[in-house]
Amino acid sequence: MTGANPLPVTVVGLGSMGRALAEVFIDAGHPTTVWNRTPAKAAPLVAKGAVQAGEVSAALAASPLVITCLTTFEDTRSVLEPAAATVSGRALVTLNSGSPADARGMAAWAAGHGARFLAGAVKNVPAGVGAPDTLLYYGGDRAVFDEYRTTLEVMGGDTVHLGNEADLAALYEMAVGAMLLPALVGFFQGAAAVQARGLEASSTVRFAGKWLDMIKSLLPVYAEEIDSRDYTDAGSSVNLFLAGADHDRDLAEETNVDTSWLAPLHDLVQRAVEAGHGDHSVSALTELLRKPEPVA
Amino acid sequence: MTGANPLPVTVVGLGSMGRALAEVFIDAGHPTTVWNRTPAKAAPLVAKGAVQAGEVSAALAASPLVITCLTTFEDTRSVLEPAAATVSGRALVTLNSGSPADARGMAAWAAGHGARFLAGAVKNVPAGVGAPDTLLYYGGDRAVFDEYRTTLEVMGGDTVHLGNEADLAALYEMAVGAMLLPALVGFFQGAAAVQARGLEASSTVRFAGKWLDMIKSLLPVYAEEIDSRDYTDAGSSVNLFLAGADHDRDLAEETNVDTSWLAPLHDLVQRAVEAGHGDHSVSALTELLRKPEPVA
Ligand SMILES: NC(=O)c1ccc[n+]([C@@H]2O[C@H](COP(=O)([O-])OP(=O)(O)OC[C@H]3O[C@@H](n4cnc5c(N)ncnc54)[C@H](OP(=O)(O)O)[C@@H]3O)[C@@H](O)[C@H]2O)c1
Ligand SMILES: NC(=O)c1ccc[n+]([C@@H]2O[C@H](COP(=O)([O-])OP(=O)(O)OC[C@H]3O[C@@H](n4cnc5c(N)ncnc54)[C@H](OP(=O)(O)O)[C@@H]3O)[C@@H](O)[C@H]2O)c1
Repeated sequence: MTGANPLPVTVVGLGSMGRALAEVFIDAGHPTTVWNRTPAKAAPLVAKGAVQAGEVSAALAASPLVITCLTTFEDTRSVLEPAAATVSGRALVTLNSGSPADARGMAAWAAGHGARFLAGAVKNVPAGVGAPDTLLYYGGDRAVFDEYRTTLEVMGGDTVHLGNEADLAALYEMAVGAMLLPALVGFFQGAAAVQARGLEASSTVRFAGKWLDMIKSLLPVYAEEIDSRDYTDAGSSVNLFLAGADHDRDLAEETNVDTSWLAPLHDLVQRAVEAGHGDHSVSALTELLRKPEPVA
Repeated sequence: MTGANPLPVTVVGLGSMGRALAEVFIDAGHPTTVWNRTPAKAAPLVAKGAVQAGEVSAALAASPLVITCLTTFEDTRSVLEPAAATVSGRALVTLNSGSPADARGMAAWAAGHGARFLAGAVKNVPAGVGAPDTLLYYGGDRAVFDEYRTTLEVMGGDTVHLGNEADLAALYEMAVGAMLLPALVGFFQGAAAVQARGLEASSTVRFAGKWLDMIKSLLPVYAEEIDSRDYTDAGSSVNLFLAGADHDRDLAEETNVDTSWLAPLHDLVQRAVEAGHGDHSVSALTELLRKPEPVA
């Protein structure tokens, strides 16, 4: 599609991310139509060759593939609603953040108006858009993904279809993204601890970075253990982390840092030992994170 | 020192790590004396050219630089105590894990017996010992570090002196290591979440890995903010993480995963907003991790 006859593409929503998306389509030679609530934001794109539509319906009518990048699904629906008739028969791809429930609501709306639908997420900052290793993942109609894959890859070379359910990108965002805050607070705590000894937080960066590399290298092993539910070949056992809990308490005493946020994690480790996982791999903690299925 | 006349080195403790340490010294041509409670473990090292001492005191007498790698500081003292007279005038380097308080106790013991002292940590697995990027860090007598640096670097090319206090390696271990469990449980939670939808935990590895890379790239920025206590130039604000807390709650509902361990983190974010840090960088959370100094 990006060859002699690049596909016309419409981008709705020209915030920092939407502008970056429109720009790579223009650069790749796609006839690019844009629309934004605040029309002035389209000016630099128009200067580069984009066509600015005055109405959303005109923007949609211009291309078989419509990409939206607004703040929320609610914003997206409120913008598309007046042009709902024009959505029919087109491939609609949303690239905003939101909950799985909101993604499902959006998918129902799209289906109700005859659009084919993908809900995706850009796993990068605007400056990363278009790079070969920039990751975007999508949930929804596999046929849409296959048909427009080459065009979608213009936004990032690492383009993945997660499955046919439209809420999967939102689910993965939440599932994997939940690692961010705990990892950061772990780093902040270490920074505060060395500061309490008159040393610079910056002195921990290199060491924390090596830990993150190490953690990354362990993930495939843990994932395999979790998928097979076989935790018996323990590189690092639950018992080892039970001993580690004492270190976290020492840290609080040594450095006057508040480590109380770690208490539920120590409790989790303790419960895993009590459940017989002491000698198992630490990935066995996953078993305790699954709530019992409610009895139907 | 590793040139024409490599320094004689003694390694006490030949567990998985101690054996790896002795081996790289032998390979680098250092006259290497070894001792272990269970003598049979020395056999492969003797076959490679090490000298096995029958008594700890004889092992210590053989070299100006003595490296111990036993399980704890307590084990180390119980092994060295009968040979305390021989420790005098030597450079003693411990490479076990332990608390800062135990490291200080060991340093006092060493000083009491006239030894010069470093307490270090190997930030790698035994198979990594000797590699150019393998990290070892030390706290204690800077003069010992400078004098024996070339020899210490045989165990790993990335060899760092943290400061003159003997408990610093233990402190950094705790401070930076506290990131491990939260990051892992974050990953396990994501794995459980996608499994609840019939997908494989392994499908999250690649995405979690990209998150870790991203987190790593942010650490220097956050450390600078923490050192300067200037949080005003926010790439990701505390408010952004406040909104993220809703996603973590959604995750629990969507996938029946127990996310309750995140509650103290959400509370921390909430308190940071209340303290006026809403628009500040998320690194401002560090301010709330410092417990108020007790009034003297
Ligand atoms: N920026 C990033 O680094 C990044 C990275 C990954 C994902 N994302 C996601 O991408 C999406 C967009 O982010 P962004 O950074 O581009 O945000 P932004 O710079 O704040 O832009 C928001 C866009 O949405 C439009 N909009 C919001 N509410 C609207 C409404 N009710 N009616 C019409 N237009 C509305 C805005 O129009 P106006 O110009 O008229 O205000 C603007 O075009 C978000 O869901 C974000 O989570 C962003
Ligand atoms: N292995 C790793 O991946 C790794 C990585 C970083 C740091 N470390 C640290 O390195 C240290 C050693 O670990 P390791 O993996 O080598 O442990 P290990 O394989 O269990 O070996 C323990 C060593 O300590 C000796 N020992 C323990 N208690 C003793 C006592 N009371 N008296 C005499 N000898 C005693 C053992 O002697 P016997 O052989 O007679 O039992 C053995 O030589 C630990 O502090 C560990 O945290 C290990």
